[in-house]
Amino acid sequence: MNLLLRDTYLALKKKNLDGLIVSSEANISYLTGYTCRDAYLIISQKKNIYLTDSRYIEEMKKNLPNSFSLKKINGSVFTLIAKTCQNLKLKRVGFEERYLAFGEYQRVKQGSPIGINLIPTHSIIEGLREIKTAREIEKIEKAIQITVKALNFIKGYLSVGKREIEVAGELEKFIRYQGASSSAFEIIIASGPNSSYPHHITSQRKLKNNQPVLIDLGVTYKGYKSDLTRVFFLGKITPEFRRVYEIVLEANNRAIQGIKPGVKISKIDYFARHYITQKGYGGFFTHNLGHGIGQEVHEEPHISAREDSPLKPGQIVTIEPAIYLPGKFGIRLEDMVLVTKKGVSNLSGTLHK
Amino acid sequence: MNLLLRDTYLALKKKNLDGLIVSSEANISYLTGYTCRDAYLIISQKKNIYLTDSRYIEEMKKNLPNSFSLKKINGSVFTLIAKTCQNLKLKRVGFEERYLAFGEYQRVKQGSPIGINLIPTHSIIEGLREIKTAREIEKIEKAIQITVKALNFIKGYLSVGKREIEVAGELEKFIRYQGASSSAFEIIIASGPNSSYPHHITSQRKLKNNQPVLIDLGVTYKGYKSDLTRVFFLGKITPEFRRVYEIVLEANNRAIQGIKPGVKISKIDYFARHYITQKGYGGFFTHNLGHGIGQEVHEEPHISAREDSPLKPGQIVTIEPAIYLPGKFGIRLEDMVLVTKKGVSNLSGTLHK
Repeated sequence: MNLLLRDTYLALKKKNLDGLIVSSEANISYLTGYTCRDAYLIISQKKNIYLTDSRYIEEMKKNLPNSFSLKKINGSVFTLIAKTCQNLKLKRVGFEERYLAFGEYQRVKQGSPIGINLIPTHSIIEGLREIKTAREIEKIEKAIQITVKALNFIKGYLSVGKREIEVAGELEKFIRYQGASSSAFEIIIASGPNSSYPHHITSQRKLKNNQPVLIDLGVTYKGYKSDLTRVFFLGKITPEFRRVYEIVLEANNRAIQGIKPGVKISKIDYFARHYITQKGYGGFFTHNLGHGIGQEVHEEPHISAREDSPLKPGQIVTIEPAIYLPGKFGIRLEDMVLVTKKGVSNLSGTLHK
Repeated sequence: MNLLLRDTYLALKKKNLDGLIVSSEANISYLTGYTCRDAYLIISQKKNIYLTDSRYIEEMKKNLPNSFSLKKINGSVFTLIAKTCQNLKLKRVGFEERYLAFGEYQRVKQGSPIGINLIPTHSIIEGLREIKTAREIEKIEKAIQITVKALNFIKGYLSVGKREIEVAGELEKFIRYQGASSSAFEIIIASGPNSSYPHHITSQRKLKNNQPVLIDLGVTYKGYKSDLTRVFFLGKITPEFRRVYEIVLEANNRAIQGIKPGVKISKIDYFARHYITQKGYGGFFTHNLGHGIGQEVHEEPHISAREDSPLKPGQIVTIEPAIYLPGKFGIRLEDMVLVTKKGVSNLSGTLHK
């Protein structure tokens, strides 16, 4: 039997639910083991039903595991969901409050007979996803491997006069030849002062001499994501850049060295943030230290100062301390690490910092 | 004064609303004229407030038009939205029921004092977006131009043994060198029998001789999208393929020729569908004829048999009749057309079919 389904049933039982409407694409892909688009899932011990429309139905007939029944959407999917819950005689049906729009919820509600209770839930499947299985780790490692190759490739390619967007184009091509299905998010190429925007939108700007180039790249491999950042420099490195770079690097090291099961997540954030603050740049590290990653680029847990839960073996998270000096430059060094039974494994450790 | 904001205020007045919470990225980008991510907008005659977090705040300080005030999100954005509505003394505040998750709505509601009414709305901004301005048409034309160039480029590049995903990689690179910021959706490269899936997920399959290659490509240019499909053939074209191709081509022509202001949209779908049905393939054209396109790949109006509203000048829509023969091959020919005052302009007309 599908272990993920078994765990889902257990999680539903705990919440006294006899069914769950799954509308998050990542959750659906996780449960079916196949990258899904424009689909809905109804999970219940009686039957698991996969709903999709005519564009995807033929492809899913071939790929859907047989623990799921396939149903074609004709007309309103929300009415169909309500009808399906009714046919299965479900009474307490959870739905994902983060992934069902208010209007969609209203439509399911209107289509449901009195006697079906729709219960908002969150993190039921996301909670399972937090701890990666060996198979998932393998896929994520492959995604990282492609990303590392791509960053090594692009290093030799950066030159004065190239546009940011052209660098992104080279990477988009390269990763597909290496087996990735796509980039995991819009590749960030942030040159010169653009690097001081934490999430710069890659532009037509040309790379210039004596300036940094920040590259934040992730790929999708069999549905799993990577997310790594490195900063390169064209020409002569300024003393200020070198000083700030060393601080971010040391913060990255301190955080990663502090990782092991049972340590409070907020403490990991503290290891990096405290060091940056000591060095006088605390006000310039303006975001969380990192995030879980897997089916989605950002998933649980958040690696933040507000997160007091302990680290657990099987979690894969990014560690990405940064310093952004507005108008000047920014430096972010982002790795991906696996929490192991005894400590930590830096999955992107082979990539030069 | 910003004309789009003026039209938005008028639309709000009609619905007796004194404010609108905008959570759709496309709607926010449309109103601000700048591609926005992870942001919320509160529109009211008193003040328009743009909410975003530390990752984007510096970039927006530079780019946000001065009809909007910038506010930084610290902590829960939903509490902040509620607080902001309260400070502006708004009483009847619309929100976008399609783009606010149930859980997000609940949080805004919980943060709002008694006396603020949250009203679900849909299509307020989307309705404005349906009719394109001259500036928007220019950007869409540029997006189409890049796509046409890319499809002409790739024609000479398709060869036996190339993988679908590698073809996608070449296109991803090419479009960025031509000025696109990204592809508008995951490029579909569907070779051989894969072309019989309407939305095939581009795979590792190698192109083979005597088989078709369907390419569905769109790019983003300054926030605006294109979406075109052509089918190429490697080797010797089979008589069946040629026959089906001619039918789809004629259906495409008939639909486009039928377009002018005032004609019911359902009739345009009929022109194509009826012809395909007459030829015996009605059951193999399994989706709508087309869709509006602009800030999003799919927007209003739907070009479907169920849509009885009349075509209006300024609409830009795709026309994409298709025939999918499961296990064999599929053919879809997709153009983008502008409804003009007198008739129609085929914006992708230069691309060989």
